[in-house]
Amino acid sequence: MEDCIFCKIANGEIDSAKVFEDEKLIALNDINPKAKVHILIIPKKHIESIKHLEESEAELIGEMFLAAQKIANDKNLGGYKLLFNVGREGGQLVDHLHLHLLSPEQEKLI
Amino acid sequence: MEDCIFCKIANGEIDSAKVFEDEKLIALNDINPKAKVHILIIPKKHIESIKHLEESEAELIGEMFLAAQKIANDKNLGGYKLLFNVGREGGQLVDHLHLHLLSPEQEKLI
Repeated sequence: MEDCIFCKIANGEIDSAKVFEDEKLIALNDINPKAKVHILIIPKKHIESIKHLEESEAELIGEMFLAAQKIANDKNLGGYKLLFNVGREGGQLVDHLHLHLLSPEQEKLI
Repeated sequence: MEDCIFCKIANGEIDSAKVFEDEKLIALNDINPKAKVHILIIPKKHIESIKHLEESEAELIGEMFLAAQKIANDKNLGGYKLLFNVGREGGQLVDHLHLHLLSPEQEKLI
């Protein structure tokens, strides 16, 4: 997607310090962290949100959680939260799917 | 797992009002709702948490999000949040993987 910031980061058009990268995914520190650790796990493929997810993309979603697990293990996180905001009313600010990894619990997530 | 409440609900040993069921998943209203809509999406297979997720289970995780999308569409939810608490320090209270679907935003999730 031409004007998508996460696509531009994924394809190298915008420089960024990645905390993880493989063939299908990248992970970045959130520039506006809401917890001591706040990382975004992002598929290189442009998917707008969970609302737009197709059946053929199920495995890719699972791989995002395996990446989250790996990042959390590498950082020795005891506990953490994994969150998708879906749609503007759900708090989604960028229309390219991204999974929030948050640790430890700040104020009150749930 | 013998003493797991979500396993007992999944196998019918404990009665419950399911909001969704297919071959691999069930969904229930949270008995202690934190939002107007607060549903738990649960795999029938006992997986303790995202920490314990194995590569072969990636597609099952994706299917949980496709189920969440379907439930949200059926309820005409504009926006919503999808959250895994991981480990006690992450707020996980039952040691059988469950995805929280929350809408609309209550206090402040993130």
